[in-house]
Amino acid sequence: MRFVRALNTCAFSLRRRVISTHFLHCSLLKPYIGAHHFSVSGTMAAVADEDSLRRALAQKQSSIDVQGGAVRQLKSSGAAKLDIEAAVQSLNALKLEKASIESQLQTALAGAAGGGSSSASRDAFRQAVVNTLERRLFYIPSFKIYRGVAGLYDYGPPGCSVKSNVLAFWRQHFVLEENMLEVDCPCVTPEVVLKASGHVEKFTDLMVKDEKTGTCYRADHLLKDFCKEKLEKDFSLSAEKAAELKHILAVLDDLSAEQLGAKIKEYGITAPDTKNPLSDPYPFNLMFQTSIGPSGVSPGYMRPETAQGIFVNFRDLYYYNGNKLPFAAAQIGQAFRNEISPRQGLLRVREFTLAEIEHFVDPQDKSHSKFSDVAKLEFLMFPRDDQVSGQCATNLQLSEAVSRGIVNNETLGYFIGRVYLFLTRLGIDKDRLRFRQHLANEMAHYAADCWDAEIESSYGWIECVGIADRSAYDLRAHSEKSSVALVAQEKFSEPREVEKLVITPIKKELGLAFKGNQKMVTEALEAMEEKVAMEMKADLESKGEVEFHVCTIGKNVTIKKNMVSISKEIKKEHQRVFTPSVIEPSFGIGRIIYCLYEHSFYTRPSKAGDEQLNVFSFPPLVAPIKCTVFPLVQNQKYEEVAKLISKSLTAAGISHKIDLTGTSIGKRYARTDELGVPFAITVDSTSSVTVRERDSKDQVRIDVEKVASVVREVTDGLSSWADVLKMYPLHSSETAEE
Amino acid sequence: MRFVRALNTCAFSLRRRVISTHFLHCSLLKPYIGAHHFSVSGTMAAVADEDSLRRALAQKQSSIDVQGGAVRQLKSSGAAKLDIEAAVQSLNALKLEKASIESQLQTALAGAAGGGSSSASRDAFRQAVVNTLERRLFYIPSFKIYRGVAGLYDYGPPGCSVKSNVLAFWRQHFVLEENMLEVDCPCVTPEVVLKASGHVEKFTDLMVKDEKTGTCYRADHLLKDFCKEKLEKDFSLSAEKAAELKHILAVLDDLSAEQLGAKIKEYGITAPDTKNPLSDPYPFNLMFQTSIGPSGVSPGYMRPETAQGIFVNFRDLYYYNGNKLPFAAAQIGQAFRNEISPRQGLLRVREFTLAEIEHFVDPQDKSHSKFSDVAKLEFLMFPRDDQVSGQCATNLQLSEAVSRGIVNNETLGYFIGRVYLFLTRLGIDKDRLRFRQHLANEMAHYAADCWDAEIESSYGWIECVGIADRSAYDLRAHSEKSSVALVAQEKFSEPREVEKLVITPIKKELGLAFKGNQKMVTEALEAMEEKVAMEMKADLESKGEVEFHVCTIGKNVTIKKNMVSISKEIKKEHQRVFTPSVIEPSFGIGRIIYCLYEHSFYTRPSKAGDEQLNVFSFPPLVAPIKCTVFPLVQNQKYEEVAKLISKSLTAAGISHKIDLTGTSIGKRYARTDELGVPFAITVDSTSSVTVRERDSKDQVRIDVEKVASVVREVTDGLSSWADVLKMYPLHSSETAEE
Repeated sequence: MRFVRALNTCAFSLRRRVISTHFLHCSLLKPYIGAHHFSVSGTMAAVADEDSLRRALAQKQSSIDVQGGAVRQLKSSGAAKLDIEAAVQSLNALKLEKASIESQLQTALAGAAGGGSSSASRDAFRQAVVNTLERRLFYIPSFKIYRGVAGLYDYGPPGCSVKSNVLAFWRQHFVLEENMLEVDCPCVTPEVVLKASGHVEKFTDLMVKDEKTGTCYRADHLLKDFCKEKLEKDFSLSAEKAAELKHILAVLDDLSAEQLGAKIKEYGITAPDTKNPLSDPYPFNLMFQTSIGPSGVSPGYMRPETAQGIFVNFRDLYYYNGNKLPFAAAQIGQAFRNEISPRQGLLRVREFTLAEIEHFVDPQDKSHSKFSDVAKLEFLMFPRDDQVSGQCATNLQLSEAVSRGIVNNETLGYFIGRVYLFLTRLGIDKDRLRFRQHLANEMAHYAADCWDAEIESSYGWIECVGIADRSAYDLRAHSEKSSVALVAQEKFSEPREVEKLVITPIKKELGLAFKGNQKMVTEALEAMEEKVAMEMKADLESKGEVEFHVCTIGKNVTIKKNMVSISKEIKKEHQRVFTPSVIEPSFGIGRIIYCLYEHSFYTRPSKAGDEQLNVFSFPPLVAPIKCTVFPLVQNQKYEEVAKLISKSLTAAGISHKIDLTGTSIGKRYARTDELGVPFAITVDSTSSVTVRERDSKDQVRIDVEKVASVVREVTDGLSSWADVLKMYPLHSSETAEE
Repeated sequence: MRFVRALNTCAFSLRRRVISTHFLHCSLLKPYIGAHHFSVSGTMAAVADEDSLRRALAQKQSSIDVQGGAVRQLKSSGAAKLDIEAAVQSLNALKLEKASIESQLQTALAGAAGGGSSSASRDAFRQAVVNTLERRLFYIPSFKIYRGVAGLYDYGPPGCSVKSNVLAFWRQHFVLEENMLEVDCPCVTPEVVLKASGHVEKFTDLMVKDEKTGTCYRADHLLKDFCKEKLEKDFSLSAEKAAELKHILAVLDDLSAEQLGAKIKEYGITAPDTKNPLSDPYPFNLMFQTSIGPSGVSPGYMRPETAQGIFVNFRDLYYYNGNKLPFAAAQIGQAFRNEISPRQGLLRVREFTLAEIEHFVDPQDKSHSKFSDVAKLEFLMFPRDDQVSGQCATNLQLSEAVSRGIVNNETLGYFIGRVYLFLTRLGIDKDRLRFRQHLANEMAHYAADCWDAEIESSYGWIECVGIADRSAYDLRAHSEKSSVALVAQEKFSEPREVEKLVITPIKKELGLAFKGNQKMVTEALEAMEEKVAMEMKADLESKGEVEFHVCTIGKNVTIKKNMVSISKEIKKEHQRVFTPSVIEPSFGIGRIIYCLYEHSFYTRPSKAGDEQLNVFSFPPLVAPIKCTVFPLVQNQKYEEVAKLISKSLTAAGISHKIDLTGTSIGKRYARTDELGVPFAITVDSTSSVTVRERDSKDQVRIDVEKVASVVREVTDGLSSWADVLKMYPLHSSETAEE
């Protein structure tokens, strides 16, 4: 909470430490609480279960202790063999009962962690996905031949293609359809900008050092790992101790450096690799620092988010939009965070692609003209109150969520709906997607409302998109620091009468009284807020003089009645000048893509049944390669047809692969299924060819001349495979499949 | 030359100092030599002209001196008034003649600089382009409200859109059509990678500091500015002195730190802003440095080019390509250079987008299967020999350039052709595009051949694409440093007999002689290259023993005949293992876009003739917005039609703008012409609408239902405006235009 409340300038940015008092949800950027990150359904039951099992275990242990004592006593007192045997039997029965409870506890813990599926099976699934991704070069650990750098990954050819497709669809779905103003700003950012945004001061994680080797660790990670390990593996833990450790996990993000340090000491936590003692925790700024220009006097940073580039351009963009609100600006680009020790593979990296939207709106009117387009959408939402009261995420209609005031306003609601459509069209499973509202203590003080699109993966629920109503915070911060007014105007059709505070310092009197300080006192008087001024007015009228603090000269002065006139006047105004609110949907593109990989991955047996084959069921929109072309057998005529089709596909802009190797059709299908290629064209005659769909394995025959345009229509989303099936005869061929 | 020869690891990278001995061309990354950067045509004539004019000027000055002396003598000797007047008249005539020569010289200098157009008119043209670009937010100086950072620019909405379009076309034209493997690597790069590539040691510019204020300058810039200024403005300069200064400009990039420093001292050059003395020149590394991770012990840099990310992945990409050559990998991404003091606006920036291709090929076979597709292309080429002999760039057919050996090989030629097609399809004027071959001393020692696509702009000829055959340099450098073999194999269909060197150290004898050092001596013997080994063999046979340096023990040892057997044997080999050559086309996207702006910009009078209107004649492929839609008059029916058309355009993925303001049609056209919008749809009825083409101002009438698909076909390049004119009646409307 430390600086979430204080600052939190941007989604994905300063919101690094997030409270999860009820540990019902992932902390936003730290979704790997693991065993303690309970899934939504059955959460409360699991907690109750675990608790009573720990108590039962403790009781059973004390029964065992008692019975053990009894056995020992019988033996030492030379009791009858039969009596001893009976006592030992009871003891063994108790031990068996204990073992049974332990195993129940183990199951309960695993169940709580995985929402049903065991932690082991989730790990195995993840390993299968990640192995396939790495083998097929969807991604590559960066600089691998030099043993890599933690938290840096390359997109290999298919991964790069998936990323391009996701970004192209993002541009179509948001920028084009919403007429947004896209900008492209540099990554290198001067310090002054990130001082204004608060990142220089507050964008930190707490770090501890191995006192002997100097190796660095995230302090909260070490404490978390300790608690997790204890809770998972130490069955002798009392229910009370377990509750204490769970409480720590829940408030982990709230702990100050001192509190974290105290807990680390109390539990005797040492450096994981060496068991050496650890330093006290201290803040480490997560921005990559550099220096702009050769002089060394202009510090700069690699931007931790793209949003600031938009904010500083507000004035020009507002002008470009004809001085009209609302409008949105968007930016896609790299962002950088120098993580202390990145874990969690592709989900926590040191450089990543963000796509951010800043929708500027009049704070007095947050309606949205296109809200009705999404109002009827219904999907999993997880409002704040339901989280607090231990409910589950439930299906809610967006119009209801807005009209009931669960979602703060129509514009925020509109973007939630658009994000839902974006993610599900990419292929995210709607049953593993929820919109979770921030708890009151997760949000920055200025934020009006905030929702995260969370996607369930083998790591738990992952925040992939943040959608925040950040009020006027960001524009105000940059207005102040730059002294450039980042404001909008509303021109009134008719002038309006407004009550205005008028402060008139009487310069002559002030000059006489304060001489050289006159200017500072005058400015301080003019800068008074309404409340302060009206209090002064009352005091001057009642007492004739008042003490007044002038911060520019650093002391109090005495203001007398004849030195200033304060009044309220009715003025006619022709326009209203205000700082717009900003609603910010912010997309972690790499996280979305990783979740998409998990949601798209499945295995199915080979025809011979001797092995499991991997498939990525990407929709054509996302698939890295839309189509493969290969001759059924190596044969010059077929090859020529294949090349002809390939040429038409290229002309139509369809990314495809032509395979002229003599590998068996079955193997070629398996290879392309693993890349998620949705369609395969097998050339088995010179007039018509067989087109096979990846998931159903359905095959149809289409004329050579038509096949490229049919594939184009399906991959462009103008028609579906079902449409194709209606148009062309289903074809079953012994030779074509496996 | 300093490290061009030594290193030059990549186009756009280390090739920072380039020799231009004949100053016939722009130095590649420093195309602003200005007055001394002669245009191709008429260069020699201009030089001769300038020279003779300077000599004539000097002669005239000495005549004036003589005549002035005569006048003074006549006056002091009290000569006749008439005689004095006659002498003064002669003197004035001489002065007039001198003024006339000065003016001729001025013209000659301006002509040499601008290739005909005067420097002033080029500056005015550039100013008009840049003003329009900035006013319409094609670009914005980054962090403008904080007074910006030199060398950093944002792309505003239309600029961002142009950039997206250029990159999308690049992907279609290169990645898709050539089946390249696209990758996406991080910008943050660990030091080890950039040490291997040579950037850590050599990627520097020479800098001098104001000794009092510490302000930094590029040493070569100061010397260049001095010489330029002298040559342009000092008409009293002797032809000899002028030749000296020109020589300096020509060899500027060759000068060592010491030579630069000596010249700065000799000419008394001081800090431009303060006139303070300057430090000696010293190298400044141009990479932005940072630190990876929290410990501070892992230095890293923001990559200065994208190529290294591809090289380090060679092994995986080769495997992905089925262990087959040739193949190409491609990458689009940000690159960073911490320029000492960036000048030249959008052409020299500190962060920019590169698009790079690394085409890996067997060094023994650089033919290209698709060369015939480009062989017949003919365009301006500027071979090395023509530059040296003072010729001009000439139109050459690519097939001829390759067959005559001007271009080193087919693959290089193929890419030159593809780059030509890419640039001209974007809208680069083919008459202001040339391919200039590097001079022998411009190329790195390992490079086989190198050509730059140079585009002529108001700054002169600008290198926008480098196309280099870099041989095996890069892969070898990373193989060595990483100890991972970055090689390819060619499997022979039948085993081949190869003569192989066999070195067999006799361990027993070596052990007796060298004891603890035996292992090091043995390894050193085994590691001998063929030449060394055969010399040793000969020496051992003739002398019986030989001195041998073992670097691992740091001294010479005596090897005797019985300690090693060296022979050549015939072996059967089943494959050839080799390091592939790489051919690298490297595109500076920002530079291409800037040149495109200049080539697309023109002005034309408004209808009333009272002002000049700006137009960007972007082809639809590049245009930031493809089409505008507006009702002729504000009217609900027309607005509905406009919205309907807008919806169809969105569905077709056509970026467009709907304008419902009541502004006059003429003004709306002017506004959109200035953004380079190729088509405007004016709704002037509910059944059919008027479509106007930007450059011709032609108008046709098209049915409301059809208009979106017609516009889509033209903007997608499936048909041309000429096709549209054939299909639909030309329409002349008083109301629709201006």
